[in-house]
Amino acid sequence: MAKDQRNVEAITPMEVDFAKWYTDICLKAELVDYASVKGFMILRPYGYAIWENIQRIMDGMFKKTGHVNVAMPVLIPESLLKKEGELVEGFAPEVAWVTMGGSEKLEERLAFRPTSETMFCDHWHNVLQSYRELPMLYNQWCSVIRWEKTTRPFLRSREFWWQEGHTIHETAEEAIAETEQQLNCYADFCRDALAMPVVKGRKTDKEKFAGAEATYTIEAMMKDHKALQSGTSHYFGDKFSRAYDVTFTGRDNKLQYPFQTSWGSTTRLIGACIMTHSDNNGLVLPPAIAPIQVVVVPVAQHKPGVLDAAAALRDRLTALELRVKMDDSEQSPGWKYAQYEMKGVPLRVEIGPKDMEKQQCCIARRDTGEKVFVPLTELEATVQALLKEVHDNLYAMAEKNLEDNTFDFTTWEEVKEMAQGKGGFARTKWCGSLECELAMKEKAGVSSRCMPLKQSGTVGKCPVCGKECTTDIYWGVAY
Amino acid sequence: MAKDQRNVEAITPMEVDFAKWYTDICLKAELVDYASVKGFMILRPYGYAIWENIQRIMDGMFKKTGHVNVAMPVLIPESLLKKEGELVEGFAPEVAWVTMGGSEKLEERLAFRPTSETMFCDHWHNVLQSYRELPMLYNQWCSVIRWEKTTRPFLRSREFWWQEGHTIHETAEEAIAETEQQLNCYADFCRDALAMPVVKGRKTDKEKFAGAEATYTIEAMMKDHKALQSGTSHYFGDKFSRAYDVTFTGRDNKLQYPFQTSWGSTTRLIGACIMTHSDNNGLVLPPAIAPIQVVVVPVAQHKPGVLDAAAALRDRLTALELRVKMDDSEQSPGWKYAQYEMKGVPLRVEIGPKDMEKQQCCIARRDTGEKVFVPLTELEATVQALLKEVHDNLYAMAEKNLEDNTFDFTTWEEVKEMAQGKGGFARTKWCGSLECELAMKEKAGVSSRCMPLKQSGTVGKCPVCGKECTTDIYWGVAY
Ligand SMILES: [Zn+2]
Ligand SMILES: [Zn+2]
Repeated sequence: MAKDQRNVEAITPMEVDFAKWYTDICLKAELVDYASVKGFMILRPYGYAIWENIQRIMDGMFKKTGHVNVAMPVLIPESLLKKEGELVEGFAPEVAWVTMGGSEKLEERLAFRPTSETMFCDHWHNVLQSYRELPMLYNQWCSVIRWEKTTRPFLRSREFWWQEGHTIHETAEEAIAETEQQLNCYADFCRDALAMPVVKGRKTDKEKFAGAEATYTIEAMMKDHKALQSGTSHYFGDKFSRAYDVTFTGRDNKLQYPFQTSWGSTTRLIGACIMTHSDNNGLVLPPAIAPIQVVVVPVAQHKPGVLDAAAALRDRLTALELRVKMDDSEQSPGWKYAQYEMKGVPLRVEIGPKDMEKQQCCIARRDTGEKVFVPLTELEATVQALLKEVHDNLYAMAEKNLEDNTFDFTTWEEVKEMAQGKGGFARTKWCGSLECELAMKEKAGVSSRCMPLKQSGTVGKCPVCGKECTTDIYWGVAY
Repeated sequence: MAKDQRNVEAITPMEVDFAKWYTDICLKAELVDYASVKGFMILRPYGYAIWENIQRIMDGMFKKTGHVNVAMPVLIPESLLKKEGELVEGFAPEVAWVTMGGSEKLEERLAFRPTSETMFCDHWHNVLQSYRELPMLYNQWCSVIRWEKTTRPFLRSREFWWQEGHTIHETAEEAIAETEQQLNCYADFCRDALAMPVVKGRKTDKEKFAGAEATYTIEAMMKDHKALQSGTSHYFGDKFSRAYDVTFTGRDNKLQYPFQTSWGSTTRLIGACIMTHSDNNGLVLPPAIAPIQVVVVPVAQHKPGVLDAAAALRDRLTALELRVKMDDSEQSPGWKYAQYEMKGVPLRVEIGPKDMEKQQCCIARRDTGEKVFVPLTELEATVQALLKEVHDNLYAMAEKNLEDNTFDFTTWEEVKEMAQGKGGFARTKWCGSLECELAMKEKAGVSSRCMPLKQSGTVGKCPVCGKECTTDIYWGVAY
């Protein structure tokens, strides 16, 4: 039997089933496919092209601040992984173990990296000599495995792709400054490339990275008002340096331990983008990371001159270094409109015989659906202005969603009501005790997201124990 | 005790010990470091920067011919791997197996990909529907594991980094054309980016890829006259499609099996570059892939104006989009000269007070050691011309090495004499039998490298059995 029923299929509306809507977009926009191995995913060409844009932009930001890329081995001997107790405790339950090489059982089993602090420390132990070599500002792009029980495309899968930055510094101050710089780098990237506002803050001890002295995070709010942790930056002090015997000769000619950071962001950012901007017609992509920024659709393309006119528009826009595609396939214009809406292409340029007569084309925005007729002489200027408008509008809508659904509360009952209602971020005071944090989970069903870097400095009461305190904290239901 | 003895250390001359010379360069130019896991390597910043340049250039070539990148899972279920018998037989002895996920033993063990034909087929089995979707021209950049017994940096390691292209086509002709196109792509890349001539040819049945109908290869000659297989391109027919049930509805509305190719090149190319161009002063890099193309060294930098003059040169060259570094560290100019020679930087620009007086700078070439004094007004033009000359000279020298050490022989005794002497490529006729190929290994100590695409068409005798035949073939000792 023939199998050729490719259509632009409808997706589940987000109001009906947000989770199903999300999965529909992932599959029907052809971003991912499920793999034969349970919990693993395939990044298809369109999904991977988004990731390539993310990588290119972010890598450029890292390099501007002096970071260099390296590649560390993917397998970590168990004994090496175990040298730092907290780290291994944090990751042991989700490590995949290689126990056979060829037909031989290995003497020591090897962990597929869940994260690479241990490998970087082991390397620095071998090569670091003098303070003159510091800081070492390293990064690598790779995949990692964490053996999660329940998985969802981009958000939680057993293998995911990421970058992991690892740096060592002469002083604690420099390492702390690096930790903050990279958190700001993530936030700037989310604003400028993903059109996504975030809350910058610090994790509580309960939520911080295994082995870190401090973990900083950016938290974004999805359209269902849940939180998505979108990047983290960790300060380790000299804890790993001591555990892995990483030393250097200091300015005082004595052996010292360097201070360390690590920071990571992942393919999860694509999931964040989907749940921040997309709608019931499919994906909506911010122009900076869209694999196709403008699609040119010829109307009545069999009529004389139409394909040439469309190709001319494509060439003019390509000359601006935009990512442009012309679709001159045999599908109807209507099918194409639906198709590129599903794929989240920011702008669609249409041109047909009538437009040609009037020396104009029609430009449709994916974010608002608005259409404008544009004189052909103004094509370049209009497209560039519209791409900027699309970005700014996506950011403004996401910011409104974040602001409209962030609430200042003083009691845990209010937080619970929010969590059981339409959700959101609850901003309260917090006394700093683990007990009250656990009680919020237990009673109100929320986890702490972060203590925002912008603290109000006011005095208030912990919503659980009622103690007077000053720390502002965000709570929410997280992915 | 202080540890601060970083020096530009001498390396073992290649005439004394070629293998040691090679390893010295890998380590002292800071390309790689050994890892805690036996047989694995670390790509350090300088080594990885070379790989980034290779990736950028090659990826651009792939994309120009319509290829797109994807990411497939790193783990392959044993049952999936086993569906195509020849492939699994070829790779089974060197597969690393994951048998534990977290604390649980897996029901089925998972192979760390040694190559990904099976995953691509499994994916296509799920998504391919119509001939309209063909060809699918996919590629991925990733690392693979092959559990080798003996390892050497870049040349043979248990983990290595590569690209693997995988494509499916409507017809056998198209797939064969793709296989050839990608082989030519590799050869062009070697010529234009690595300044490395190669012999293009087809592997014998004995040497071809497990499961392939035909394997094409590019073979390069190293400075010790050994062969290095530097890229391969495979044609599979519809063998894997049938094994993995990959089908599409054809133009005739019937289900058909697509025809498949794969092609790969690896971090081994960096090893090829080292053994093609480098010398007893260290690495020599072709400009196209050099992380630093020009190093600017101020002479007597404490003298007034020198640092500013050097910085001005750096800025002018950077404006040409060259990769330029100025070294204004406290090390002596002599130390810096040795350091950047070790690192293979193609051009060194020196400027000191005397040069400033004369409105000139001095430019030294890494490949020949020649120095020229250049009026400052001619900086840009001279540097660009010299970079091209360095590339061309490197290519010419490598070509001379290849030509001077390729011999036409008619008997296996001559081949043996060559192999036991200074080595090289032996070009002979071959009757096509496995017995004679095995006999050449046994008697002359060489393996077949390839049957060159350029066949002479002449008649001659097989050097083993004496049978009359026409096929030209290359023999050599290979890495
Ligand atoms: Zn409290
Ligand atoms: Zn023979």
